[in-house]
Amino acid sequence: MRVRKKPWAAQYIKDHADQIVTDPETQLGHWQDRFPSEQPLQVEIGIGKGQFIVEMARQHPDINFLGIEIQESVIATALRKLVESGLANVQLVETDGANVDTLFAPAEVDQLFLNFSDPWPKKRHAKRRLTSPNFLSHYQNVLKKNGRIQFKTDNRGLFEYSLMSFNHFGLEFDRVWLDLHNSDGNVGNVQTEYEEKFSSKGPIYELIAHFK
Amino acid sequence: MRVRKKPWAAQYIKDHADQIVTDPETQLGHWQDRFPSEQPLQVEIGIGKGQFIVEMARQHPDINFLGIEIQESVIATALRKLVESGLANVQLVETDGANVDTLFAPAEVDQLFLNFSDPWPKKRHAKRRLTSPNFLSHYQNVLKKNGRIQFKTDNRGLFEYSLMSFNHFGLEFDRVWLDLHNSDGNVGNVQTEYEEKFSSKGPIYELIAHFK
Repeated sequence: MRVRKKPWAAQYIKDHADQIVTDPETQLGHWQDRFPSEQPLQVEIGIGKGQFIVEMARQHPDINFLGIEIQESVIATALRKLVESGLANVQLVETDGANVDTLFAPAEVDQLFLNFSDPWPKKRHAKRRLTSPNFLSHYQNVLKKNGRIQFKTDNRGLFEYSLMSFNHFGLEFDRVWLDLHNSDGNVGNVQTEYEEKFSSKGPIYELIAHFK
Repeated sequence: MRVRKKPWAAQYIKDHADQIVTDPETQLGHWQDRFPSEQPLQVEIGIGKGQFIVEMARQHPDINFLGIEIQESVIATALRKLVESGLANVQLVETDGANVDTLFAPAEVDQLFLNFSDPWPKKRHAKRRLTSPNFLSHYQNVLKKNGRIQFKTDNRGLFEYSLMSFNHFGLEFDRVWLDLHNSDGNVGNVQTEYEEKFSSKGPIYELIAHFK
């Protein structure tokens, strides 16, 4: 997502250091210290403007959520949403989600969300897709045994690729939806901003899978 | 597919016993004897009116094809197509495709095609779906090592189910298409009668996978 620079973002992030982490390496192995109580930890990589992670936190007070986003102007908007929500079970992290394996200790994470990740449609960029084998291997390192990945996209090519990639890696599918919004899978579905805007253009695909 | 009874079918089948088998148990382990030369054996379960299998045979003279169909009136139409084609590398079998494991010796088959199989949408009928684990186990018995299944459907629920079922069984995906006719996967795609008629209503899904 290309975004305009927000002049207020940097200061706003500094002012809310209790809800957003900008030096994530220091938290490795201790993420639970950022929350009022120790609960299962679920992480979204690439939160955009944060609607999904904040709403998930609202609906699931018994889970701690971490939202990762690299773009300052975007995460600042998510932070504002979070501050306004008054929720204590969600924290944000301003960093590159591609480095997820350096942010967490082994088995520190219970579940990962990938929502509308960059499709990198060119074949020579396949390695950059967040569902490529290299990333799956990182996810496996930081997830608990049987830890799940929940992956949602509207990009057909990326979903085809990801079904293959997950299958080849040995992940076991829990659910596949080929038109989430017109399925019973839509019950309890929390939409991202992007999803709300573009789901009328074509089907939303979702895959939930776990490492064996 | 419900079809009207064709009064000419039974006699026509009798008259072409060199191209259609009605007592398939007798052929177990000897299917290659039905063809002019020994070549890889590919089998379609549920051929309907036979357009797919006859066209495949035309395009691939180096492969022997077997088409299985239980309904006499339907397979008679396929047989007529075959007789008119003059092709020697395709044979039909009038029997229930559900019994595939009793028709072939272990490793006698190189590849299986499932095209637009009955979706059996009710959960309690899941066992009747030709991509359910019990059938996959039969396919594994009759297929050669690394033998492939090529599965095509327009039924979203059946395709979601089959992705899960293949994945759980440990099949390795070779290709997934979520809109075959609007993909480069459509190059070389041979359509069934049903596919020609209904593909304008929604996407055609295809999964190609092999046993490890």
